[in-house]
Amino acid sequence: MSQTHSNMRPLSGVTVLDLTHVLSGPFCTMILADLGARVIKIERPDSGDEAREFGPFVDVEDGTASGYFFSVNRGKESIVLDLKVARDRFIFQRMLEQADILVENFKPGVMDRLGLGWKALSEAHPRLVMCSVSGFGQTGPYRALPAYDLVVQAMGGIMSLTGPDGGPAVRVGTSIGDLCAGLYAAIGILAALHEREHTGRGSYVDVAMLDVQVAMLENAIVRYQVDGRAPEPIGARHPSVSPFGAFHAKDGPLMIAVGSDAMFEQFCLSLGWPEGRCDSRFHTNASRNAHLDELTAEIEVRLRQATVDEWLVKLQAEGIPCSPLNDVGQVLRDPQLRARDMFVDLPIAKDVNLTVAGSPLRFADHAPPAYHRAPRLGEHSDALIAEFCPEYAEMRGAA
Amino acid sequence: MSQTHSNMRPLSGVTVLDLTHVLSGPFCTMILADLGARVIKIERPDSGDEAREFGPFVDVEDGTASGYFFSVNRGKESIVLDLKVARDRFIFQRMLEQADILVENFKPGVMDRLGLGWKALSEAHPRLVMCSVSGFGQTGPYRALPAYDLVVQAMGGIMSLTGPDGGPAVRVGTSIGDLCAGLYAAIGILAALHEREHTGRGSYVDVAMLDVQVAMLENAIVRYQVDGRAPEPIGARHPSVSPFGAFHAKDGPLMIAVGSDAMFEQFCLSLGWPEGRCDSRFHTNASRNAHLDELTAEIEVRLRQATVDEWLVKLQAEGIPCSPLNDVGQVLRDPQLRARDMFVDLPIAKDVNLTVAGSPLRFADHAPPAYHRAPRLGEHSDALIAEFCPEYAEMRGAA
Repeated sequence: MSQTHSNMRPLSGVTVLDLTHVLSGPFCTMILADLGARVIKIERPDSGDEAREFGPFVDVEDGTASGYFFSVNRGKESIVLDLKVARDRFIFQRMLEQADILVENFKPGVMDRLGLGWKALSEAHPRLVMCSVSGFGQTGPYRALPAYDLVVQAMGGIMSLTGPDGGPAVRVGTSIGDLCAGLYAAIGILAALHEREHTGRGSYVDVAMLDVQVAMLENAIVRYQVDGRAPEPIGARHPSVSPFGAFHAKDGPLMIAVGSDAMFEQFCLSLGWPEGRCDSRFHTNASRNAHLDELTAEIEVRLRQATVDEWLVKLQAEGIPCSPLNDVGQVLRDPQLRARDMFVDLPIAKDVNLTVAGSPLRFADHAPPAYHRAPRLGEHSDALIAEFCPEYAEMRGAA
Repeated sequence: MSQTHSNMRPLSGVTVLDLTHVLSGPFCTMILADLGARVIKIERPDSGDEAREFGPFVDVEDGTASGYFFSVNRGKESIVLDLKVARDRFIFQRMLEQADILVENFKPGVMDRLGLGWKALSEAHPRLVMCSVSGFGQTGPYRALPAYDLVVQAMGGIMSLTGPDGGPAVRVGTSIGDLCAGLYAAIGILAALHEREHTGRGSYVDVAMLDVQVAMLENAIVRYQVDGRAPEPIGARHPSVSPFGAFHAKDGPLMIAVGSDAMFEQFCLSLGWPEGRCDSRFHTNASRNAHLDELTAEIEVRLRQATVDEWLVKLQAEGIPCSPLNDVGQVLRDPQLRARDMFVDLPIAKDVNLTVAGSPLRFADHAPPAYHRAPRLGEHSDALIAEFCPEYAEMRGAA
C-alpha cells in the first residue's frame, strides 16, 4: 500500500476508507492520519462533507473556505463518489479490496441500504476492520433518532454536572460528545487491527456517542449511588477535594488544586498562613470540605494581596498545582505548548496559513507527523481512480 | 501469556504492567482491560494507589471502600511492590520480561531516577511498548510542575469556553483533562503495538494532559484567528449554528439542535409555526444567527404550550434532534442505555453491588467483556510472584 508521507509512522502502510462527515468520524480518521495511516475521504457529489459549509470561514483567494473543515481533515485525500451509482460503487469496491479500515458515521441503516453493511462487506473482505460511529448506536430503541453533540451531552448526563455552583447546567464548550466518540472509535479500530494480526480476520466496532458520554461520567455514577441524589453543577470546584477550584487573586481568578493533607500544609506556608495548618477546621480533606466557605475566605483574603502572575511564580515554585484561566489567545502563546510544538501552521491557500492544534501523541523514535492541509472536494479523485481502478479511469473520462 | 478471562477479546494475550495512579493512567489501562488485555496494577506498599483514599466511599463489610477507585480499576490484578527495594525491583524486572506494555503516570523524571527510564528499559526489553502520561509532558519548561485536571482544563482553554452565556467560566463537570489523556494514551499504545508487529520493536509514547486539551479545542483555535478575539462561554448555544441550544418548554429545558435549513423548515412545521419557514430573518443559518433573540422568542412562545416529554415524542418522530436535560439518575434509567447494556453491576463485597458504566466499544463477533471488580490492595501479590518469579516466592515467604 502506498504512503502519503515519506517518514515512517506507527500506522504507515495502513489504508483507511473514510465515509464520515462533520465531526466524530473525521476527528477519528484525522488521528489515524496523524499516526501515519493513509486516509481517503469519500465525499458525495456537489457539496461533499457538509462541514465544508460550516463556519467560521477563512478568506482564501477564490472566496471563503470552512475553517471548521480544515481543523479536522488535515492529511486526508478526497475523492467524490456517489455510492448510489453503479460505476462509483464499483470504484469503491476496488478500493475496499486494498483497504484495511472503513469508518462511517451515517445514521444506522444507511450502509445496509447501500448494500455496504458489515455482513456483506465482511464476507467479501474478511480482513476489513469496520467502525460505525452514530449518536445512539446500531441497536436499541433510539437507534434511528437523530443526534448532535448537544443532544448526547444533555442526554448522557455531563451537562447536568457542568455549570456554575447552583446552575444553570451548560453544554461543555467544545463538542466532546463527538470528539470523545472519535477517540473511542480510534481505540476500537486499533484494537481490532491488533486482533487481525493474530486471527487474520477483521472485525466490526459499533460506537455510540451516548454510550461514550456515559463511559466518561467518571465518579458521578458512584456518587449518585452513595449520596442517593443526582450530582449538580459546582462551578470549578471538585466534588470531594478541597481547596480545589477558582480563587480570586488581586487581578483575576487563579485555579488552585490541593490534593492532599501534606500539600495543604505547604500551601498554607506558601500563602503566608502557617496557622492554617493547625486549624482543626482544615486539618483533613473531610473537614476542609465541611468548612469550605470559611476556608475560601481565609485563602482569598491572602490571595488578593498579589496578582495571578505573582502567585503563579510563587506557588509553582513551591509545588502547588495552580493555573491561570487562559483564553484561547493565551493558549496559543503558552510557552509549554510552544515548546511541545503543539501548534501547526498549515498553508490552506496561496499566502494564507491557518494555525491548528497538532497531534498530542509524541513517539520517541519518530519525527512529528508531516502535516498537510485538508483536501479540496475531490482533489484526488482522478489520481485515486487511476491508482485503484486504472481500467475505469478511461471509461470515466469518456462519460 | 495467560489470560484472566475465558472469552477471547481483541487484546487477549496482551500483558500490561500498570504503574499508574488516580485517574488518567488507570482510565487508560481499564480500557485496555475491557478490551481483553491482562492488566497488572503495581502499587506502592501501605496505601497503594492514592485513589483508594478518595471519596465517595461505599460501605462494605469491614468498613468503607473508595467508590472512586472501583469506578476506574475494574478487571485489574494488584501486586504490591516497592520499586526502591532491590528484591521488588527484581520481581518487576521478571514481570517486564513477559510484558507487552508498561504505562506510568509519575511526574517526569521519577522513572529515570528509579532506573526505569525508556532508554534503559528499551535496551533490556526491545519489544516493550511504554507510555508515560503526565500533566505537561516529558519536555518543556513546565515539565516538572504539578498538574491536576482543573489545572489543565484552565490552562488549556476549555474552561474559558464553558459556562453560561456571559460567564463565569466553569470547569467541565468531569475530569476530562485526565480522561481524554487516558483515551489518547490508549490510542498511542495500540498504534505502537501495531507498529511492533511490523518492526519487531516497541516504542515510547509521551502524552501530556495539557497537549490533549489543546488537541480537543475543536474549532475554537480557528474561531480565534478568524474573529480576532478569544471565544467565550455561551451556555448551551452552538457558536455558529442556530437554533441550537436549551429552550424552555412548559416544565423545563429542552435541547434542540437544528443543523440545516431543510431541518429548520421541518422544525417550523413541527412547532406549528409554518410561517417561520418564510421569514427572511430566519431563512439561512447566518440570518438565524443574526436574529437569535427573536428566533428564540418565537420558538419558546410555542414550546411553552406543552411539556418536555410531549415535545420529545413529537419532535423525535419528525426527525428533529432534541433531548431532555438528564441528571445522572435519569441517565441510569435511560431505556437506550439499558438496551445497550451500558451499566454493569459489580459485586464489590459480600452483598454489596456497585453500578458502573461499562465499555462503550461493541464488537460484532465478541461477547461483552467479563467485568470483574477492582482488586483489593495486593490481592494478587502472592499469585503473581509465584507466576512470574517462582524461585523468589519462597525467599519472599521467608523474609
